[in-house]
Amino acid sequence: MRRASPDISELRSSLDVDDLAAELFALVERLYPICRSITGDGVRATLGILQEDLPLDVVEVPTGTEVFDWVVPREWNITDAYVEDPAGRRVVDFKEHNLHVVNYSIPVEGTFTLDELRPHLHTLPEHPDWIPYRTSYYSPTWGFCLRHKDLLALEDGNYRVRIDSSLEDGHLTYAECVIPGESSDEVLVSSHVCHPSLANDNLSGVAVASRLAKYLSGSRPRYTYRFVFVPGTIGAITWLARNTETASRVKHGLVLTCVGDAGEPTYKRSRQGVADIDRAVENVLTYAGTDSSVVGFSPYGYDERQYCSPGFDLPVGCLMRTPWGQFPEYHSSADDLELVRAEALADSFLKVLSAFAVLEENRRYLNTSPFGEPQLGKRGLYRLMGGSTAEHVDELALLWVLNLSDGRHDLLDIAARADLPFEEVNRAARALLDGELLREAEPGETIEPVSAQPPAGP
Amino acid sequence: MRRASPDISELRSSLDVDDLAAELFALVERLYPICRSITGDGVRATLGILQEDLPLDVVEVPTGTEVFDWVVPREWNITDAYVEDPAGRRVVDFKEHNLHVVNYSIPVEGTFTLDELRPHLHTLPEHPDWIPYRTSYYSPTWGFCLRHKDLLALEDGNYRVRIDSSLEDGHLTYAECVIPGESSDEVLVSSHVCHPSLANDNLSGVAVASRLAKYLSGSRPRYTYRFVFVPGTIGAITWLARNTETASRVKHGLVLTCVGDAGEPTYKRSRQGVADIDRAVENVLTYAGTDSSVVGFSPYGYDERQYCSPGFDLPVGCLMRTPWGQFPEYHSSADDLELVRAEALADSFLKVLSAFAVLEENRRYLNTSPFGEPQLGKRGLYRLMGGSTAEHVDELALLWVLNLSDGRHDLLDIAARADLPFEEVNRAARALLDGELLREAEPGETIEPVSAQPPAGP
Amino acid sequence: MRRASPDISELRSSLDVDDLAAELFALVERLYPICRSITGDGVRATLGILQEDLPLDVVEVPTGTEVFDWVVPREWNITDAYVEDPAGRRVVDFKEHNLHVVNYSIPVEGTFTLDELRPHLHTLPEHPDWIPYRTSYYSPTWGFCLRHKDLLALEDGNYRVRIDSSLEDGHLTYAECVIPGESSDEVLVSSHVCHPSLANDNLSGVAVASRLAKYLSGSRPRYTYRFVFVPGTIGAITWLARNTETASRVKHGLVLTCVGDAGEPTYKRSRQGVADIDRAVENVLTYAGTDSSVVGFSPYGYDERQYCSPGFDLPVGCLMRTPWGQFPEYHSSADDLELVRAEALADSFLKVLSAFAVLEENRRYLNTSPFGEPQLGKRGLYRLMGGSTAEHVDELALLWVLNLSDGRHDLLDIAARADLPFEEVNRAARALLDGELLREAEPGETIEPVSAQPPAGP
Repeated sequence: MRRASPDISELRSSLDVDDLAAELFALVERLYPICRSITGDGVRATLGILQEDLPLDVVEVPTGTEVFDWVVPREWNITDAYVEDPAGRRVVDFKEHNLHVVNYSIPVEGTFTLDELRPHLHTLPEHPDWIPYRTSYYSPTWGFCLRHKDLLALEDGNYRVRIDSSLEDGHLTYAECVIPGESSDEVLVSSHVCHPSLANDNLSGVAVASRLAKYLSGSRPRYTYRFVFVPGTIGAITWLARNTETASRVKHGLVLTCVGDAGEPTYKRSRQGVADIDRAVENVLTYAGTDSSVVGFSPYGYDERQYCSPGFDLPVGCLMRTPWGQFPEYHSSADDLELVRAEALADSFLKVLSAFAVLEENRRYLNTSPFGEPQLGKRGLYRLMGGSTAEHVDELALLWVLNLSDGRHDLLDIAARADLPFEEVNRAARALLDGELLREAEPGETIEPVSAQPPAGP
Repeated sequence: MRRASPDISELRSSLDVDDLAAELFALVERLYPICRSITGDGVRATLGILQEDLPLDVVEVPTGTEVFDWVVPREWNITDAYVEDPAGRRVVDFKEHNLHVVNYSIPVEGTFTLDELRPHLHTLPEHPDWIPYRTSYYSPTWGFCLRHKDLLALEDGNYRVRIDSSLEDGHLTYAECVIPGESSDEVLVSSHVCHPSLANDNLSGVAVASRLAKYLSGSRPRYTYRFVFVPGTIGAITWLARNTETASRVKHGLVLTCVGDAGEPTYKRSRQGVADIDRAVENVLTYAGTDSSVVGFSPYGYDERQYCSPGFDLPVGCLMRTPWGQFPEYHSSADDLELVRAEALADSFLKVLSAFAVLEENRRYLNTSPFGEPQLGKRGLYRLMGGSTAEHVDELALLWVLNLSDGRHDLLDIAARADLPFEEVNRAARALLDGELLREAEPGETIEPVSAQPPAGP
Repeated sequence: MRRASPDISELRSSLDVDDLAAELFALVERLYPICRSITGDGVRATLGILQEDLPLDVVEVPTGTEVFDWVVPREWNITDAYVEDPAGRRVVDFKEHNLHVVNYSIPVEGTFTLDELRPHLHTLPEHPDWIPYRTSYYSPTWGFCLRHKDLLALEDGNYRVRIDSSLEDGHLTYAECVIPGESSDEVLVSSHVCHPSLANDNLSGVAVASRLAKYLSGSRPRYTYRFVFVPGTIGAITWLARNTETASRVKHGLVLTCVGDAGEPTYKRSRQGVADIDRAVENVLTYAGTDSSVVGFSPYGYDERQYCSPGFDLPVGCLMRTPWGQFPEYHSSADDLELVRAEALADSFLKVLSAFAVLEENRRYLNTSPFGEPQLGKRGLYRLMGGSTAEHVDELALLWVLNLSDGRHDLLDIAARADLPFEEVNRAARALLDGELLREAEPGETIEPVSAQPPAGP
């Protein structure tokens, strides 16, 4: 039986775009100052804020836990870090910007000449006003990141250095939020929560994902939606290691990242390449009326690398706007609240919701009147003389759905073949369902045409 | 065993193109004045004229007969119809042009003001000199079609209106003509006979189909050829409903329509897309030396919609010149005897005959000497020093046929791979058959190459 | 188990290109004056020279031996041939250039008027300074080839003609050289040895093949390499007829011809089209840094016609530089030692060796840590902060190999998908093998991903 209400479609049309944009941006803004890492209190603080609006299940995985080929590392926390020049002025100060310290720096306290200090100082000579973002998760070292112009201003002398960090047994923290649906088949949405003050990469993804979860939780979807907020790489691997059976129920998935800049949307296909999620997002982008790009899978990028590893091969793609590494502000202090646009966040949100609406509605149907065309006119589905098409249902879409609903094509296939927005094809399918000219196909059920039948005899 | 004579090829070369063109045009001319519809005496009169040259089996299907999702409608006939202006002049007169009345108009007699009349008057404002063609088969209404310039000249006042039509239980009339072949496998040719005075759509198709039937009836083809002359949509559906088992023997088919205008040929593929008929027509058009188009199937157009419905999925394509809706005269009085060209009719006829010749000759063969090339020289099949190629047989075609005749490729495949006209490939195949270097493959029979054999041992 | 040393790659880097170029050209130069044909002492002399450097197995097949559809012809030898003009001057003289006599001319002695002689004189009017190359293997006739400008200078009168040839029962001579490898699976290299003084077609191929055999014989390859030196067509057919079981072990093969001119490399695919050899050569050419062409198989050309006949369908492609018939000097005296370049010979040699290195190294591997990415950093395979990639191993290549090593893709597939040179992908695979992150797949062994597993229950 079909459900009475197409919740996600309804949800989509009920949202005020300006309010949504403001809400998304406000969340990015609030999360921005926190110093996150792959473990530690920054992640906890972030998840705590998300929890205010979401029934979020926060999971703590102890240091030393084996997760496939990896081991959960020691937990890293930091309270202060600075470099004082010979005159005692703080020339690099963690409290001014949390990118100033190399993420996962070990504690250090001492005095160094400028030459001794230099190997620990990282800059971006080509962008002298920006602070780079550097990490050293698995190599016990320390360092500072600073504006190149500030580096050039340093004079010889003794520098006092202090990093008040701790690297101790603790936990890796991640969270998930499940919106139950009619089916135990799942849609996975994953975003990484390990970057400190970087706005597009990836507070944009965190904001869009958490608000999708918030609004979906008020709906009754067909699929079960699972949102995971994980530290990049080690967090996704930890989640997969602990949820391998759940992973087998993931039928569609998206990694959301860099969804807030002014660029046009970019979709990176899943490893499978022709999965429903690939076809759904591509249909949404194709008929959105703006430019967009669809690129093939590659094993480089965000956590789709983990979901699409050969042992999982989940149908998980990645939605971005400007792809990582292709905007100059990437992994620097310039990836800030000015780079992210409220309206881009809302547009990304709505495109994902549209893709979910497609997944919810996509079906394989069977034409119940497959011999010749059924008489649409007597059902009010065909223009009469001089008349216009019955309310919004495109006649050609009706004919395509009837012609290809043989159990071998789902609505996404039909939309692609007919070169039509999924919505239009689905509207036609609903009209035909109402007219009992279509019914849902059982698994494997197809129409065997007359042309495939052996002749009755000589 | 191969047949002694390739009848269809012989037939084609025996025809005088000018005579053929004149004959086809004369038939269009003779059929043009008749007022046809989906039922009624106009169809009968049309089939009667075709019967003069063809052993045509005319079938009458009673009103009320259920045909799949449809019911055969009441029969419509008309003797007169007109609109008289306040001065008593016939300003719209069915006897002047049968497009003036909306086809299937119910009887009416009365007096109307111009404002009352207007909703029943149809014009083409963008072509003020043309009368539109309108129908109302399944909605009981009435109307007149007229030149827009004439509508503009009408003055206020009372108009006397009369339509002497009848809409009564009767029959739907269609006809078929079968040319028996060696095989019970069939080639279907379908054209619609329901349009009143419209020349390209579709007297052109009727003329070409009936003359194909006439000339083929003098041949001994491999396939059985079945020509059906049916009212559009309801007629094709009626034929399918009454001939479902016959339909299962249709291995190739063509809908012929709009084949008389000056445009270049357009072929619309069958739903299957790579059926023999698709490949045959495409080969013929590719090497015809003139422009042509091949377009994909869509469930909109002519009766291929019915033959390619998912319950039948017959390999039936559609040959046109300028596709329907793409010439401005479509469905108007300008689709007249000036739009149709005798030489275009003949060219369409010959292209279909060429495609049939391809179907007749297409085979899967096996190279009888598959290990290395056979010695063509000793069989006179290879140029000698300084000599020229043995009579018309292209050396490269010989080598392609030998190389690909492994039971996995038919001659159409070979022609496509070799980028050669089918005829040239077939000529090579015949030369090789004569030299006993080729034999016809049994169903499923293939050559297993040495490279596919497991090695004899370690 | 993997072998300790990648011999062919090592071999390739051990060669001095200039020495190699000189050696190849010297061999062409030495073989150039010999008058070869499809049988006779010219072939024996040629093979004798090759034998100086190679353990060559020379095979003599008697006249009259049936080889598939052919019969080994009588053996042809020639000692002298000339045309004397009325003044007694030799105006055409075999001793001046062996192309002057039509190859396989029957013996003749007599006096002819110029008009009688003309049908036996062959020239190239469009290249009046070049002597054409003509043969008449299977038609018992005789003739002379000469410069067109010399033909024009002939005056009326009686010409004394003599051809001291013999056409007698004897043998067809071919040779092969086998470099045993670890596997009985074979790589076949074939070149034709039947052309008289023609340098590019095909002394270039003979020289490259024989030197490949010479250098490979010092290595321990994975595959068994078989080099065959055969008269064109009849020789390849004779070899196939006598070695059908060996042919079934040929997993990869190349015909080498016209590999010495200044043009860029051209590779003609095997009939299979996507065989390993096709993908290997295409990868080598794609990343060679120079222009090159890859063309589809056609059943016209050199002995790939025989190896790719439908009864064999061996995966044998053809490497050329400018394809036959596309350089004007083809089959004329202008295909001489000036047309062939030492550096082109060496470049062809090295491209073949590179393709063989690819074949040797190509494998299907399995990712031993397929759930998520393995931790490359702890194995030194991932850049550390600010550090560079571990010695020459491209990070992206590592990730591609890990992601696609599921048993369904070999390294050539991965290189194509990643758009990388095979060498880079193979280097990544070796690093991963060293890190035990990869192992060789058993035949048919694949990774079944979680996404393909049925869920554990409701």
